[in-house]
Amino acid sequence: MSDASFFRSRWVQPPDWVTSQIPGGLPQGFRAAGVACGLKESGRLDLGLMVAEGEHVTSAIRFTSSAVLAAPVVVTRDRAKAGALRVVAVNSGNANAATGGRGMDEAARMQGAAAMACGVAEDNVAVCSTGVIGVQLDGRKVVRGLLDAGRELGPCGEGAFAKAIMTTDKFDKRASLTIELSGGPVQLTAQAKGAGMIQPRFATMLCFVQTDARLSEETADLLLGVTVKRAFDRISVDGQLSTNDTVVLQCSGASAVSVAPESEDEVRFGQALDALLRQLALEIIRDGEGSRRIARVSVRGGNHGAGEVVARAVANSPLVKAALHGGDPNWGRIAQAIGGALYGSPSIAFDIAIEGVQVATAGAALPHDEAALAQLVARDEVEYVIGLPGDGHEAEVFFSDLSHEYVTINAEYTT
Amino acid sequence: MSDASFFRSRWVQPPDWVTSQIPGGLPQGFRAAGVACGLKESGRLDLGLMVAEGEHVTSAIRFTSSAVLAAPVVVTRDRAKAGALRVVAVNSGNANAATGGRGMDEAARMQGAAAMACGVAEDNVAVCSTGVIGVQLDGRKVVRGLLDAGRELGPCGEGAFAKAIMTTDKFDKRASLTIELSGGPVQLTAQAKGAGMIQPRFATMLCFVQTDARLSEETADLLLGVTVKRAFDRISVDGQLSTNDTVVLQCSGASAVSVAPESEDEVRFGQALDALLRQLALEIIRDGEGSRRIARVSVRGGNHGAGEVVARAVANSPLVKAALHGGDPNWGRIAQAIGGALYGSPSIAFDIAIEGVQVATAGAALPHDEAALAQLVARDEVEYVIGLPGDGHEAEVFFSDLSHEYVTINAEYTT
Repeated sequence: MSDASFFRSRWVQPPDWVTSQIPGGLPQGFRAAGVACGLKESGRLDLGLMVAEGEHVTSAIRFTSSAVLAAPVVVTRDRAKAGALRVVAVNSGNANAATGGRGMDEAARMQGAAAMACGVAEDNVAVCSTGVIGVQLDGRKVVRGLLDAGRELGPCGEGAFAKAIMTTDKFDKRASLTIELSGGPVQLTAQAKGAGMIQPRFATMLCFVQTDARLSEETADLLLGVTVKRAFDRISVDGQLSTNDTVVLQCSGASAVSVAPESEDEVRFGQALDALLRQLALEIIRDGEGSRRIARVSVRGGNHGAGEVVARAVANSPLVKAALHGGDPNWGRIAQAIGGALYGSPSIAFDIAIEGVQVATAGAALPHDEAALAQLVARDEVEYVIGLPGDGHEAEVFFSDLSHEYVTINAEYTT
Repeated sequence: MSDASFFRSRWVQPPDWVTSQIPGGLPQGFRAAGVACGLKESGRLDLGLMVAEGEHVTSAIRFTSSAVLAAPVVVTRDRAKAGALRVVAVNSGNANAATGGRGMDEAARMQGAAAMACGVAEDNVAVCSTGVIGVQLDGRKVVRGLLDAGRELGPCGEGAFAKAIMTTDKFDKRASLTIELSGGPVQLTAQAKGAGMIQPRFATMLCFVQTDARLSEETADLLLGVTVKRAFDRISVDGQLSTNDTVVLQCSGASAVSVAPESEDEVRFGQALDALLRQLALEIIRDGEGSRRIARVSVRGGNHGAGEVVARAVANSPLVKAALHGGDPNWGRIAQAIGGALYGSPSIAFDIAIEGVQVATAGAALPHDEAALAQLVARDEVEYVIGLPGDGHEAEVFFSDLSHEYVTINAEYTT
């Protein structure tokens, strides 16, 4: 069933060879489950299992760059084959981060239990956790839960899986695409979570992608690396890098349709994956804790990486974000963020356009229709374009606003 | 009249030779005024004038390091004698920033009008502005207002002056100290403003300090430079550097008590100024838009400036700030901020203590009395001490929490 609503942002153009369906069923060669193992006190689903089957399974993975790594990140990085991940086991409700040697033991135990539940070797298993930091994970619950999940695996289990990985998310983030390749159609599905602690350079998030296309390990790794950089590396809810971020691409190869290196199919598959991850990244900031609207800041020009610094500074400025929340076209906040980002530099002659309306040029205000602009910034998506002197590449960051609900959620998360 | 309440933070220890009075009257040789010239639509005071008189006037000044400088900052920096500022003219309600050539003209006109109103040369006048960015300053109102203010100058005008420099401040920030020096007592008074857009490396704030002690230009500059670094450089409300920050120290010399270079009196005066500016800096974050409580983060250890990076990251983390607001002892947020600040580094074995309670060591949680800790973090001031491997110097930052009111204020500032 066709679903035009997935690619709903003007900032993501899906290629012609991609169609989106209402999610309901995994690609060939995948089974999944989501169960409640008791980590969440609410009794909600909190443990997910995703399994790729067959002889042609390949995979790729990316992790957070935080200097404080959660135990499951370390265990997966050090004890799993990145190119041969058959199983992904994920719990929510506890991040298993800052938990020391005991936390490492629990992550390894989770890996072992998932391997046993699915009948694969331990180094074919990735483990992920999300939730509160600094609390020991109750491994007995996880082990019991994984054995339950192993019995519930099914070809339509990704709905429960997607719910099991949620924490403060207000909605689950899923997609199901068909990509037309030269050898025939392949399926691409994904489940993501993330709402707070989201930062460019990798969001605080988890994302799991499945396809029945046949990819080499190298192709999977190349395409995931490039597309993550354009998606989850370019979003910010609150400038906060997480200890647990993980993105996994699993390819079952069950469709028998190959994506050969340096082929036209590789381009087609890569562009589909790019559109998928960018839209999911936007879903994450749209769910940014309490978010009312989202924005894109694009910086053109600048020297020595100034554009990148300015784009991130604007996206992470609480003043800019609060103005975005209020539908306030107060571009002085953007001018202030530019100046602060480049502190110590000589005076900068910046240009600012909001939704195509030029409000400042060469560092000074330009007359414009303020009432019309106020209407433009009250919509769902707002675009800021900043020009700096210099010839730097364009740098973009997508971000959410700063809301009362963000404060409420984050003032009362553990207590 | 003695006032024990000014030095109310445990983080500031005034020296024995300093006493604090309830503000009411400037040091000898100063007159001030505050008037309403119509820049604030509310009709509140929005223009202040501070004048030092006599033959021994010296001064020192520090500005924001933003790459986007407001017109009054540029005019004062380029057209005033930093060591001979007899007059300071300040308006609120308009920052005169990002206003181009016309804004520069208006700032110069403000300088000229203040000089005329007080009968001094233009290069003896510093001008400052605070308020909305990107809107042209109505210079006619300012000129008229300065002439009015010139007629109202008086030895007790600093109360109106302090009110005239406020924007979103909920309370005025003033102090009056007596310092015992070897040659007799001298007076030190100050007025500061600032509540939002406050960042280490210089807060979004204005601060004006007056003394009747006799200082050379060099001594005034040295002491102001050192004490600003320990005060306004070490606070953050929201990590946002402003376009307008200015701190001015004016010395009338009218007491005839000298502060000689490299003397014991220089130490005594410097320590008094240090305590004054640090307490005023804490007042600014205490007034941090919607602030309920303030905190100090101190980082010990770390290599290559890591301590400084971590201290600023913790102070600016919206997750840490929201937890502070909620009185939530969720130290996982601090662990996350450490990891994000040092992204790309190998895993960091951090220690964290909150109000003296060790909650994590070598990167892992430590058992502690959570109920007792929850009570400790619900008080007015909360202290976080972070240990990192390495032998870096201690780095400290003072910061406010993130509140609903911050969002309200900043979502609706211009509209």
